[in-house]
Amino acid sequence: MERIESSSNAKIKWAAALHQRKERDSRGEFVAEGVRLAETALDSGWPVLFCLATDTALANVRAQKIAASLEDKKCPVYIVSENAYKKAAATESPQGVLLVMQSVRFSLSDFPTEGNPFFVVLDRLQDPGNVGTILRTADAAGCAGVVATEGTVDIFSDKVVRSSMGSIFHLPIAAHVSASDLSAYFQAQEISCMATVLDETAQSHFAVDYRKKAAVIFGNEGNGVSPELLALSEHIYIPMAGRTESLNVATSAAIILYEAFRQRHTMDSSQHR
Amino acid sequence: MERIESSSNAKIKWAAALHQRKERDSRGEFVAEGVRLAETALDSGWPVLFCLATDTALANVRAQKIAASLEDKKCPVYIVSENAYKKAAATESPQGVLLVMQSVRFSLSDFPTEGNPFFVVLDRLQDPGNVGTILRTADAAGCAGVVATEGTVDIFSDKVVRSSMGSIFHLPIAAHVSASDLSAYFQAQEISCMATVLDETAQSHFAVDYRKKAAVIFGNEGNGVSPELLALSEHIYIPMAGRTESLNVATSAAIILYEAFRQRHTMDSSQHR
Repeated sequence: MERIESSSNAKIKWAAALHQRKERDSRGEFVAEGVRLAETALDSGWPVLFCLATDTALANVRAQKIAASLEDKKCPVYIVSENAYKKAAATESPQGVLLVMQSVRFSLSDFPTEGNPFFVVLDRLQDPGNVGTILRTADAAGCAGVVATEGTVDIFSDKVVRSSMGSIFHLPIAAHVSASDLSAYFQAQEISCMATVLDETAQSHFAVDYRKKAAVIFGNEGNGVSPELLALSEHIYIPMAGRTESLNVATSAAIILYEAFRQRHTMDSSQHR
Repeated sequence: MERIESSSNAKIKWAAALHQRKERDSRGEFVAEGVRLAETALDSGWPVLFCLATDTALANVRAQKIAASLEDKKCPVYIVSENAYKKAAATESPQGVLLVMQSVRFSLSDFPTEGNPFFVVLDRLQDPGNVGTILRTADAAGCAGVVATEGTVDIFSDKVVRSSMGSIFHLPIAAHVSASDLSAYFQAQEISCMATVLDETAQSHFAVDYRKKAAVIFGNEGNGVSPELLALSEHIYIPMAGRTESLNVATSAAIILYEAFRQRHTMDSSQHR
């Protein structure tokens, strides 16, 4: 394994540049940081360009296994100084292992069409922690694909990748999708859309039947779902018993995706509530 | 309204000191920061000691209403310089309005006992964002009270108060409760306990009947629910369809509290799944 001491080394600059969206977009690359995320990345089979690891991190058996597995695949692993690593990493308490990876990008035509698939749409969400958390929940709830509309935070940003806890590698995610392309796709595929709204006159999310080809749309933290997508959707609302006015969007997603999970996995076809 | 220019003014130091847990605990006070949180605080009727606001903030009508409402109640409002405000505030982009408040503290004996109340237990949770988010969800789901066991992050910390979005003022929360006191209370009140575990041999959370006096326990982010509480609880597990190994604790809480909500609000007494 080659050593890198200087933080002006080309590989360090390469990794550091990927913390900017325009670099990630133009190169089609991103950074996955941390031992556990690197393990999930390797399991996924997504292409790894190279790995940076500190001596301290490589004292750990799990990090050693990651390095050994990459070397088996002829993927370069560089042992880097703490200073150089800090420049390459985005986190404040870096774990000492990061992968520079090629992003695998999906489009709507990659999504499964058979067997009543269930989709999630993130419509212009801005908070990377919310997006990562929803990806993790969508994965757990068995979603067949996720759409991020134009204007949604970059799904390959450090914080989305990290807070997805590896689900970024498990789900087909179509990003940069325009509202009109999405509308056309849903109509062509006969997918029923439900949009979450903050409006108690909408239908309760418990009253909807999710046991069909369906998509649930979660809107921007401040402005909700865009008018074009609202127009083609059934409007659903999470009933609230207390004095709260609203729920965090990642909380709303957890509640609705698991109501869909319950119906799809625990109810036979004759029942509906 | 009196003006404060200096960041070494006693009121500024007072507010700043409350960002430390030991000061909050010994004084029984805390800080609620931001326009919306201050509005919820005033609606709640919790005691306000004084308010700090910047000129910039007071250009806003909502902030003016907060100040006027406090002055009506003879509660002091100080107009402070930006520098002094920054010292008093904890956030990086301060909103320019904060209240120094007395904390209202509850104990288990304050909880309602009639009408099959439903409780949430936070067992040694460490992340203030998780705790605040769960308080908000518990409020929306109609929980009758929340318990924070000894070792849980301070519920009056800035970040818990902020991320609860005001639910801190709506729910009775008993903090610093020992596992043995909690066990004794649950037994005396005949409350059924369910503990969330990461163990697929546990019962699915969908298979449990929540339509009774019940409490759900959520455990520490790394170590789960403590052995003493596990011993007296039914173990429940959120089924996962994808390749995720676990869910964030605030996500788990949203899923389980709304399954309880569904059963308690949409099912008649003859049905159970």
